[in-house]
Amino acid sequence: MGEEANCDAVMEDGNGNGNGKAKENGHATAVVAMPDVKAKAEDAVVAPGDPRLQGISDAIRVVPHFPKQGIMFNDITTLLLRPGVFKDALDMFVERYRGMGIAAVAGIEARGFIFGPAIALAIGAKFIPLRKPKKLPGEVISETYVLEYGTDCLEMHVGAIESRERVLIVDDLVATGGTLCAAINLLERAGADVVECACLIGLPKFKQLYPVQDFYKLNGKPVYVLVESLEYEK
Amino acid sequence: MGEEANCDAVMEDGNGNGNGKAKENGHATAVVAMPDVKAKAEDAVVAPGDPRLQGISDAIRVVPHFPKQGIMFNDITTLLLRPGVFKDALDMFVERYRGMGIAAVAGIEARGFIFGPAIALAIGAKFIPLRKPKKLPGEVISETYVLEYGTDCLEMHVGAIESRERVLIVDDLVATGGTLCAAINLLERAGADVVECACLIGLPKFKQLYPVQDFYKLNGKPVYVLVESLEYEK
Repeated sequence: MGEEANCDAVMEDGNGNGNGKAKENGHATAVVAMPDVKAKAEDAVVAPGDPRLQGISDAIRVVPHFPKQGIMFNDITTLLLRPGVFKDALDMFVERYRGMGIAAVAGIEARGFIFGPAIALAIGAKFIPLRKPKKLPGEVISETYVLEYGTDCLEMHVGAIESRERVLIVDDLVATGGTLCAAINLLERAGADVVECACLIGLPKFKQLYPVQDFYKLNGKPVYVLVESLEYEK
Repeated sequence: MGEEANCDAVMEDGNGNGNGKAKENGHATAVVAMPDVKAKAEDAVVAPGDPRLQGISDAIRVVPHFPKQGIMFNDITTLLLRPGVFKDALDMFVERYRGMGIAAVAGIEARGFIFGPAIALAIGAKFIPLRKPKKLPGEVISETYVLEYGTDCLEMHVGAIESRERVLIVDDLVATGGTLCAAINLLERAGADVVECACLIGLPKFKQLYPVQDFYKLNGKPVYVLVESLEYEK
């Protein structure tokens, strides 16, 4: 514990640059970034309008002023209440990652535990929980990082990953990318080959913080998001 | 928030009655309790020696003195690192609960999120997260309860469950039963029909705290466990 995240993206809270057009019903859909970790910006693709994406987008609720005044919180629990849509989202991840030689799925506590293990089970990978401090018993390595509301830390079991094993990192949402960046650093310090990060939701407002502003990419790793939400204003 | 759990089982830490025989390699296997919520002790059955149970039992690690001196912590993360065994455990839950008309699976933060959503997806149920205070946005109901190391609280979204919907509650481990009992109370207050609780591990040392000491049953609800661990001493 104690190391600062060394991340290409700026971690501190940033104000949006207004690049998102207003929309009427809550969420826009997009699928971003190729699995090739050497992909350049021009290699990024937008999804060919999978019909499941609209349902996924519509099922996500935006709760104003949570966890504090001015934050529009993207809540995936309403999606989880709709079994068909919940399964659509899982299926889209599984269809993407099956056959990619991924040995491990690492999920970030706690909402990364909702999709991460189900993806791991479906593609025959192991599941590695990345947890808040003092939750994992036994020997751990940790990564401290700066995020929007202060600092935080992720821990992982020593021995959970073997050298050069291909890993997918899963969380529910990517905003500034601080947490995912810490997860990438943690896994790479343990010798893993991080293939990609997968999130249900991306917040395009924060793309200005990314090295390649057209799409989500952190520490050179693509971040794949199913849907984008523009409703994250202060 | 603020209600005390009203639970048949004593919530405070109890010393074991030594009813578990010593064993050599960490874990014993058992499947306990029938889904009929009116079952009496004599209705309880022991599993017919499913060959998958030994692998599941062997894959669980016991970490001494976590989270504090004297506690033998049953760690499921080692099981998650073995995809075949991880899938065996999921399959056993899914085989039991498929076709039982379960509309919702409620998982207890955070380790109940590892198996709960995967079970829900496999049986076509919705997933309801039961979380620590202030984690869920929007309107919640909460249940405060006494557990082994102090007090705690679970919250659930208002509207997550409809009246008389059949619910399965999932966590990784049952010890004194305090957390599961709070979950049962919370769901019943919301009008749910709690069918059963499912845990990977049960600690027979604490069965003396249960109304029917031969097996796990809380508030009249059966608790189904895949394996029992005797290694939980102080």
